[in-house]
Amino acid sequence: MKKNALGIHGGAGTILRSQMTPALEREYRSGLEIALHIGREILERGGSSLDAVEAAVCSLEDFPLFNAGRGSVFTHEGNNEMDAAITDGARLKAGAVAFVKNIRNPIKLARLVMERTDHVLLAGEGANQFAEQNGIRSASDEYFFTEHRWLQLQEAIAAGRVQLDHTLSEPAAVATGAPLSEPGAVATGAPENRKSQIENRKSLGTVGAVACDANGRLAAATSTGGMTNKRFGRIGDTALVGAGTYADDICAVSCTGHGEFFMLGVTAYDVAARMKYKGLNLEKAASETIEHLTSIGGEGGLIAVDAHGNVLLPFNSEGMYRGFVGADGELNIDVYKP
Amino acid sequence: MKKNALGIHGGAGTILRSQMTPALEREYRSGLEIALHIGREILERGGSSLDAVEAAVCSLEDFPLFNAGRGSVFTHEGNNEMDAAITDGARLKAGAVAFVKNIRNPIKLARLVMERTDHVLLAGEGANQFAEQNGIRSASDEYFFTEHRWLQLQEAIAAGRVQLDHTLSEPAAVATGAPLSEPGAVATGAPENRKSQIENRKSLGTVGAVACDANGRLAAATSTGGMTNKRFGRIGDTALVGAGTYADDICAVSCTGHGEFFMLGVTAYDVAARMKYKGLNLEKAASETIEHLTSIGGEGGLIAVDAHGNVLLPFNSEGMYRGFVGADGELNIDVYKP
Repeated sequence: MKKNALGIHGGAGTILRSQMTPALEREYRSGLEIALHIGREILERGGSSLDAVEAAVCSLEDFPLFNAGRGSVFTHEGNNEMDAAITDGARLKAGAVAFVKNIRNPIKLARLVMERTDHVLLAGEGANQFAEQNGIRSASDEYFFTEHRWLQLQEAIAAGRVQLDHTLSEPAAVATGAPLSEPGAVATGAPENRKSQIENRKSLGTVGAVACDANGRLAAATSTGGMTNKRFGRIGDTALVGAGTYADDICAVSCTGHGEFFMLGVTAYDVAARMKYKGLNLEKAASETIEHLTSIGGEGGLIAVDAHGNVLLPFNSEGMYRGFVGADGELNIDVYKP
Repeated sequence: MKKNALGIHGGAGTILRSQMTPALEREYRSGLEIALHIGREILERGGSSLDAVEAAVCSLEDFPLFNAGRGSVFTHEGNNEMDAAITDGARLKAGAVAFVKNIRNPIKLARLVMERTDHVLLAGEGANQFAEQNGIRSASDEYFFTEHRWLQLQEAIAAGRVQLDHTLSEPAAVATGAPLSEPGAVATGAPENRKSQIENRKSLGTVGAVACDANGRLAAATSTGGMTNKRFGRIGDTALVGAGTYADDICAVSCTGHGEFFMLGVTAYDVAARMKYKGLNLEKAASETIEHLTSIGGEGGLIAVDAHGNVLLPFNSEGMYRGFVGADGELNIDVYKP
C-alpha cells in the first residue's frame, strides 16, 4: 500500500534545550508547522510529491529563522549566495543551482533548471541570468535582512543568555568570544558581539523536504543560504545530487549538516544504494548511512522516505529541526534528541 | 597481492576509425602514452597512487588535443572555465574546483583544496583567489590557444575530410553545417566552418586517471575544459565527488561522457556501492554501472581500478581515448570499440 508521507528539516547541529528560550522554540516550531501544513495539503488533494516538497521548502525559505531563502546568511561581502536542489524520483530527473544571489526562492529556480534545461546544475551569474530569462522572482538585499526580525532575534538571544546564566549545562558551547558555529549555540557577552554570533548561529543551517505521494512517487528538495563569511567560493552538499539531495523510485533523501562529509560519504545516494544493493529497508539503510557518516567524522542528519510512505529522520548531532506527516495525517514536530 | 596499476582516459564519444586520420590518431595515442609513462614511473619507484594520478592528469592537461587544461575549449566570452577533482581513497579525502580560469593545471589546484582546506569544492573567482594565494601557476589566454596547434589540427582535419570523401561510413555524423558535438566527429565543408567545428569536436572531452599503488592505496583524478559555448554557468559531473570522480578503499573511478547522466546516476560512487553492498568484483560492478547508465540514456565511459590492481575501462559510446598499465608493466592504448 502506497501512502502520502512528508518529512521536513530546518537544519541540524548543537541544539540544546538548555540553550533555547520557550519563545524562540515556538518560533522554530511554527516555521516547521507551516511548511508541513502546506506540503500535506498538496498531498491530500492528490498533488505530486514533487509539488509538495517544492512548496514545503518554499515555505521554509520564506521563514526568516532558517538559513535558506529569506533567512540566508550574508557572505563577507554582504551578499546572499544560496544553493538548492530538487529531485524527481519517478522520472530520475534533477535540477540544482549554486551561488545564486537575490533569488526569493532558490528551490523554484532549481525546479526550472530541471524542467526547462538539459542540465542538472547551474551556478553563479549564469544561473542568475537563467532566472531572469525565465521570470523567476528576485528580491532586494533588504528582503534578506529585516530589521524587525533582527531585533526580535536579538531579544530572544538576550533572553537566552539570562536563562543560560542560570542553567549553564554546556559551558563550552556558550563561552564568550568563542566561535559559535552551530545553529543552536547562543550568544553571550557584550552586545557588540551579538551580530556576528547571530550570524554564526545560522551558519550551518539548511532546509529540506522529502515526500511520497498517493502514487508512490518520491521527491526530495534541499535549500541553503550557505555559510556566513564563507570564502573562496565554497560549494557544499546541498546542490549536489547524491550528496545532499537524492530521489529515485526506492527512496528520497535530503541532508543537513557539515556538508563536506556528506559529499565524501555521497550520503543521500548511499541510503538508496544500501536499499537497492543490500536489500535493506529504509530504517536500516538510513541508520547504517548515519553510522558511516559518524565514522568518517561527519555531523548532521537526514530525512528520508520510501515508496511505502515510511519516513525516517535520523541524525547524530545534538538536535535537528524536523517534522513529518505520517499515515495518520498527524503533524509531528521535534527539535532535540529523542 | 596488491600491485601497481594505472588507467587513464582522454574522453569518450563518437570516435570512428573511418573518421580518423593516421596522423591524428598517432597524436592522440602519443598524448595517452606520455601520461601513462609519467604515472607508471611514479608507481614503479614506490610513489603513491595520488601522486601518480595527479601527474598523469597534469600531462593530459598539458596536451593540447584533450579538452582539459591547455586544450580547454573556450566559452562564448572567450574564457576557459575548467573543472577538476581528485580523490584520495586511502584517506577518504577529496578536493575539487569548478569554473576556474587561467589555471595551468586545475588538477593541482584541486589537490591543494584537498590538502590545505577543510572544504571539498571551491568554485569561480573564489577558487581563483585561493589559487593565487597558494602560488598556483596561472597561464595567459594565449597558452590555451596556440596558433601552431590550431593550424596543425586544421591540416589534420583537412586530411580527414579527403579521407571521408572516400569512406563515408557515417554520413549523419559528418554532415556539413550540422552541429558536431562529439569529440571524434570531424569537420567537412567550407573552411570558414572549421573553427567552430574544431571547437565542437573538443566539446565533450574530459581526461582522467585512476591508480592503485604498491600499498593498495587507490586514487582518482578527473579534469575537463567544459563545453564550448556553454551558458548559464553549467557545472558537469567532473568536479562532483561520487558523480564523475570517486575513490575509497574499495575502488577508484573517473568518468567521461554526457555529464548530466553521470550526475543522476551518481555513477562513480555507484561502482563502489555495487562492490561494497552487492559483493560484486570490479568487472561485474563496473559493467552493471555502465548498463544502468545506458538504461537512463547516458553516453560515455569510465575507468576503474580496485585494491588488487585490476583495471577496467568500460564505455557505451563509439570510442574512448584510453590506456592502462597492468601487472606486467606493459602499456596498453586504444581508441575504438574492441
